[in-house]
Amino acid sequence: MRSIFENQLHVLNTNLILMGSLCEDIISSSLVPISENNQSVVNGARKTYQQIEQMEHDIEAQCLKLLLRQQPVAKDLRRISAALKMVYDMKRIGAQSAEVAAIFSQGHVHDGTEFAQLKQMVEQVSAMVTDSVDAFVHDDESLALKVIQNDASVDQEFDTIKTSLITHISELSHDGDYVIDVLMIAKYLERIGDHTVNIARWVIFSITGELNGEET
Amino acid sequence: MRSIFENQLHVLNTNLILMGSLCEDIISSSLVPISENNQSVVNGARKTYQQIEQMEHDIEAQCLKLLLRQQPVAKDLRRISAALKMVYDMKRIGAQSAEVAAIFSQGHVHDGTEFAQLKQMVEQVSAMVTDSVDAFVHDDESLALKVIQNDASVDQEFDTIKTSLITHISELSHDGDYVIDVLMIAKYLERIGDHTVNIARWVIFSITGELNGEET
Repeated sequence: MRSIFENQLHVLNTNLILMGSLCEDIISSSLVPISENNQSVVNGARKTYQQIEQMEHDIEAQCLKLLLRQQPVAKDLRRISAALKMVYDMKRIGAQSAEVAAIFSQGHVHDGTEFAQLKQMVEQVSAMVTDSVDAFVHDDESLALKVIQNDASVDQEFDTIKTSLITHISELSHDGDYVIDVLMIAKYLERIGDHTVNIARWVIFSITGELNGEET
Repeated sequence: MRSIFENQLHVLNTNLILMGSLCEDIISSSLVPISENNQSVVNGARKTYQQIEQMEHDIEAQCLKLLLRQQPVAKDLRRISAALKMVYDMKRIGAQSAEVAAIFSQGHVHDGTEFAQLKQMVEQVSAMVTDSVDAFVHDDESLALKVIQNDASVDQEFDTIKTSLITHISELSHDGDYVIDVLMIAKYLERIGDHTVNIARWVIFSITGELNGEET
């Protein structure tokens, strides 16, 4: 039979999985085809983000309660501290995805090279979110390391987009709204990649007690 | 005579003050006049950032040790948890300031309206960093609330700059490097403001046990 403490850790785990799946949902729906009803997408993203914020509060409160009342052993302390740190990264992933949906819904970013690149970034970071949360749930250090490695290609994609935009400005091939919106979306997606790296680092800390590399 | 635990809390305090002053240094030096030797500024910022990263690690380790070994009472637990969360925001402030210095050193952002606006943003967020750390050190809830209120004008400044840049693109009045670099610097400064809001929120949590508003 589980102790009360083990039950509470189990609830914490379940909450983190749920928060992770909300993050996956919100990213995946952030760049839907322009022809669809964008206002409903933005409203949906805003609603999902509110749920994510609420979960951050709940999980933080739960972690602080576990830390204070239960005097956990080292392994559990690491897991609870990791959760306390990770929820901020998950919340930021939610916030940044909602920003992406809001910018995209304004309709300045149309089909073309950068749009295809942004779509690819969404797929990459979405998979990294899934992997980082799975790594936590299954105590999977190698999956966490994979997330950290994958971030380099997201950073590369951001640099590629930035370079194209500088050319667009000089050639007047796109208007200002397009350039600014593409850059902001790319930057948000690049930061989402960074937050998955942070989550992965906390997973590794939770497993090994060592902090791997730098938070980003 | 102080207990060992009280001594350790005192060391934690001192470390946070030191980390805060490094953050103030790195922001203040991020937008120096273009005529000076920018490479030395960038190197200086990089070095300060390395110190900030090291302090993040040290303080995190110290917080986890205090949480595990000392079984703190509620007030101290809140303070330690707040410190554990705040150091990430302080580290991000350092990272974003170093990015600002690196972008600015490339020399694409020259004197003019946006430069004056960026300088003003630097002054605003620099004061917010000082205030948020002071609020923690002195358990000053009203100072923390002031930081949270001040963030609106930083956000406003960012929007103003973004709007001017869209006009610049359509009028071809500045080249692509200028536009992209100004936007990136403004975005980093806007995020620094957000991180001071997070710190202020953790200060309020540390004092009252209540989380004020949303993390940003």
